[in-house]
Formats: sequence, C-alpha cells, structure tokens
Amino acid sequence: MNTEYLRADSIELAAIFQYPASGVILCDARLPKLYPEYFGAAKPLPTLALRAGESSKNMGQCLKIYEFLSENGVGRQDIVHVFGGGTISDLAAYAVSTFKRGCRLILYPSTLLAMIDAAIGGKTGLNHLGYKNYLGSFYPAEKIIIHSPFLKSLPKAELRQGFAEMLKYSLLADDLLLPELVSPELGEDDIILSFALYKMQVCAIDPYDRKERLLLNFGHSFGHALEAASQYKIKHGDAIVLGMNIACDFSFQQGLIEEEDWADYRDWLGQYPVPAAAMRFLDETPLEVMKPFLLQDKKNGQSLRLILPTEDGIKVVEATIGKNS
Amino acid sequence: MNTEYLRADSIELAAIFQYPASGVILCDARLPKLYPEYFGAAKPLPTLALRAGESSKNMGQCLKIYEFLSENGVGRQDIVHVFGGGTISDLAAYAVSTFKRGCRLILYPSTLLAMIDAAIGGKTGLNHLGYKNYLGSFYPAEKIIIHSPFLKSLPKAELRQGFAEMLKYSLLADDLLLPELVSPELGEDDIILSFALYKMQVCAIDPYDRKERLLLNFGHSFGHALEAASQYKIKHGDAIVLGMNIACDFSFQQGLIEEEDWADYRDWLGQYPVPAAAMRFLDETPLEVMKPFLLQDKKNGQSLRLILPTEDGIKVVEATIGKNS
Repeated sequence: MNTEYLRADSIELAAIFQYPASGVILCDARLPKLYPEYFGAAKPLPTLALRAGESSKNMGQCLKIYEFLSENGVGRQDIVHVFGGGTISDLAAYAVSTFKRGCRLILYPSTLLAMIDAAIGGKTGLNHLGYKNYLGSFYPAEKIIIHSPFLKSLPKAELRQGFAEMLKYSLLADDLLLPELVSPELGEDDIILSFALYKMQVCAIDPYDRKERLLLNFGHSFGHALEAASQYKIKHGDAIVLGMNIACDFSFQQGLIEEEDWADYRDWLGQYPVPAAAMRFLDETPLEVMKPFLLQDKKNGQSLRLILPTEDGIKVVEATIGKNS
Repeated sequence: MNTEYLRADSIELAAIFQYPASGVILCDARLPKLYPEYFGAAKPLPTLALRAGESSKNMGQCLKIYEFLSENGVGRQDIVHVFGGGTISDLAAYAVSTFKRGCRLILYPSTLLAMIDAAIGGKTGLNHLGYKNYLGSFYPAEKIIIHSPFLKSLPKAELRQGFAEMLKYSLLADDLLLPELVSPELGEDDIILSFALYKMQVCAIDPYDRKERLLLNFGHSFGHALEAASQYKIKHGDAIVLGMNIACDFSFQQGLIEEEDWADYRDWLGQYPVPAAAMRFLDETPLEVMKPFLLQDKKNGQSLRLILPTEDGIKVVEATIGKNS
C-alpha cells in the first residue's frame, strides 16, 4: 500500500479539473451542482454522477459503473477520479478494483468521515443480500487528495458522522486530541491530517484487517447490525457510537471492565449527540432482530469476534457463541 | 503471494474429503459423478455444483455463489475448496475474493490447463459485457493441490488446451522440455510440476502483470478476441495457438523478425492440431469483427500493447493505434 495523502487548495483543485491528465470522473451527484467552479471545467472528463447513501451501494449501481467505464474505453492504465463521501468511495472503488482486475484510482473525499476514515486503507464495499459491505475488496487508492473547503457545504448531520469516528479514534489512541465536539474548529487541515495519519499508521501495520486494524472496528459489529436492521435509516457514525455504548455495556456485564471504567467510557461517549430517532430504534428493536446481522459480520467465522474494552484497553475478544444458538 | 503447490495421491485426496477441516466445496458439476469415491464421503461439506465453460463464467453464476456462501454462513476464516478446470477456478475464486473481502481459498485444478496455468498466479475472472475476464481480481489461493489421476477422465480436446499453454511456455522459456505432443506421457507429475514451476516463478517476480508476467499473454490478445468473437465456441488453448500464429505473422509484417525466424515459429506452432472449425472461423472473420475485442483487452489503455516475437526474443511492444482509428 503506497497511498499518497495530499491536500489541494482551491487553485490546485481547479488546476486538476482544468488540466486533467486522463481518465474519467465518478462523483456524488450533488457535487457538480455545488461546485460548478470545478466540475464545470472547459473540457471536462467523462463524468458519471452517482446517488450517495448506503442504499445506492449495491450491485446494480456497480454494474452501471462497469458500463460507464466500458463505454469510455477505460483501461488498467487510466485513472478513475472519485469525488464523494464514504458510500461513493466504497462503491466506486469496488467497481474500479474489479474492472479489468483493477484500474488506477484517485480518491477526493468530500466528507469529514471519508477524509479521516473511509477513503483510507483500501477497503471497498457493496451492500448485498441485506448485509453491509458483504462484498468488497482491499484496493488502496494511489492518491487521496483532500480539499477541506468541501466541508463547508456538508450538512451538520453529515459532519457529525465524521465526529463519531474521531471519537472512536480518541478512545483507541490516547495521544489524539479530540476537537471540541460542540463547536468544532473545522476546516482545520491539521486536525483532519492528525486523525487521517492515525488511521494510515494502523493500516500500514495491518493492511488486511488481521490484527491491529481490527481494533478500528470498535463499535462496528453492533453498529453495522443496527444500520442494516434499520435499513440504513440510522447513519454510520450515529450507529457506531451506539455500537460503542453497547460494547461497553457488554464488557461490563461480562466482567471485562470495572464499573468505574464503564462510567468513564459512557461519559466520554455521552458527549456525542445521538439523534432521538436512533435511540428509539435501539430501544424498540429486540436483540433477535439484530442477531443474524451480527453473525454475518465479516470478522466472524465459527465464533463471534468482538472489539471490547477490557482492563488492558480495547481488545479483540473471541466469544464462543454457536451459529444456531 | 505465498501459495503452496502440493500433490495429493488417491489416499491423500480421499483423506481430505473424509476429514474436512471446515468450509464448503465449489466444483465442476461433472466431478461428483466421475469421482464418487471422493465426493461421496460420509459427511460431505456443503457443496455447490457449477456448470463449467466460459459461458458460465458470468455475474449471474457469481451471484449464485454469493448466495450459497451466505446460506452456509461462510466467514473470512472459512475455507472454500474449489475443484475444477480454469473456468470454474476463475469464477469461483472471483466470488471467494470478493465475498466479505475475501475468504480462504484452496484450489484443486482438475484439468491440465488449470494445473499448469489457470490455478497459478491468483488471476480470477468473469466474462462481462461480451468481453473475456472483463471483471476480475488478483487473489492467489493459499494452496493449490494437484491430483494428476483426474486427467484420466479428461476428454482429449480438453487435454489439448493444456498442451497449448505448454507450447507457449516452451517458446518463452528455452529450458522447458515440451512433452511429445502426439502421444504425451501424461499422468507424469514431473512434467506438470516443471511447467507449473515456470509459471510460479514468473508470477513471483511480477504478481500484478506489470512486466515479466505480461509475456505469459503471448497469443492472448488475439486469442481472447477470437474466443469472445466466436462466443467461446473456440476453446482457450486452440484460440491462443491461433493467436500466437497471428502474433508471429504480425511481427514478420512489421519487420520485427526475419523470414527464417518466422518459419521457425510457424513450424513449432504447427505441431499443434488446431481444429478445422477454429481455422475456418479465423479465415471467415473479418478483422473489423475482432477489433473491438482487441481494443478492450485489459493490457490496453490509450495504446495497444502486444506480446510479439522480435529479434531479441518475445517482448511487449507498444503499438500507437488510436482508439477510434
């Protein structure tokens, strides 16, 4: 994995659009309308606009991308430029990784969550058969180019999803400074870079999610189950904050942490404003509904692997729950 | 890439079926009927029988495999055992590589072509939008286990497809001894191993098809175009022998080789019994029909990359033919 992580200011970004080396663009359909100064370049590259969101991250959309790449004669040496948040980059990078066994890929994450998390580390994914990221590949982009002014047009709810992952990083890495959650100093490239760097370091040590990188799934087993069970009405960041809360409760019930630590985790996570609707869904959904989603989680084979707080920090814990139990 | 290449005799193979560690089986539908002594084990693993052939190597079949893996709760730590020739391993390994971002994979190639070529080196593939291996991934199996007695039930025409790749290797590597083409001493593990070893060495140097491995595509640009244009009525080995012939003719026409070398190549390739129907298809098919298939070849981006004999041996040659010319 030799991904370059770069920043582009407005002039640099305009130049990329003005003098595109080659290739095609896949983008969130909202971006060309929001940023005509870039996407309205004189000689635009062939562009396919995609609807963002987990419900669009499916095989049908992927087949449309294959057709677009084929119609535009994209070969393995051609660059596919991808502009969007995590759902767009998951979908587009999956298609790019499997088309002709993989074309060149540059990601331009346009959301906070994608800048510090989704674009980094090469995981691609499609939702399939009702499960989140059930299909996917490991396919790191050759470059990730961030342009933080994109965040100015991001709705508050979307910004919050990025904070959720930042909150998770802050629990995993003691030395990461969490920006104020209530009135964050955003647009600050330094904050973005420090969080992105943390993820890049973890992925460099364990690119294929075998050991160290598994910890980044803290809150994700329960979180993905919540997302899928709610048919993606609960957003990813909100779901993983709830997932981290569930993981902490579970750890305390299993005797893995003392009551005092449990309270500390809950206080820290309590800073995050989980929307009332998501809380209500969790309260009203019996465990039985979530169970199949938990058991289909990619980390799980014959046993359940959960990322849980323990007395020695957050660890991978194998739970020997039978598939039919 | 850390693929182990192992041989299993009848007792060892029976033991694999008798005491399967875990996982599921994907296989050519003909094999359980031909080899009930293996596939009829007392406690068989869940098995999905697949129809072999290029026409089955498609997204529809791949979606069926995803469903089978899902229904059987296959996780990333579970082994998928794949029995079959090149089309089965291309299809099955593609599905396995993309399901939950990749499960464990063991290949048991059952044809000569798969033993010495298709199973080795991690290329997976689906035919899509009319083009061969248009979708695919690089996903080496953790083990390749060959059982040469499988070749006894292989039709002569299928055996010939393996010889075609052996013929190609013999042109690329001076020190490879080609077995007699007319009455080959088959079942000889040594011959199989020596050819398999050659491919493994090339793939170890260049796993992602960037330089040395490209030479293994000698005859394949034209060959894949012939296969696709004939709607896979021409078999792979037959097609690449024709493809190597075309490449040699093209080299001579372009002045890359002398008449004497051209004659040598043609004599050597002339040992191979190309079926009359395939020759007829080639004669009757105008170049215009093959052109789009050539231009969509995965090796090609803005220019055409052909593997051609030259005065310095077989090389990658870039031809600057415009896409719209």
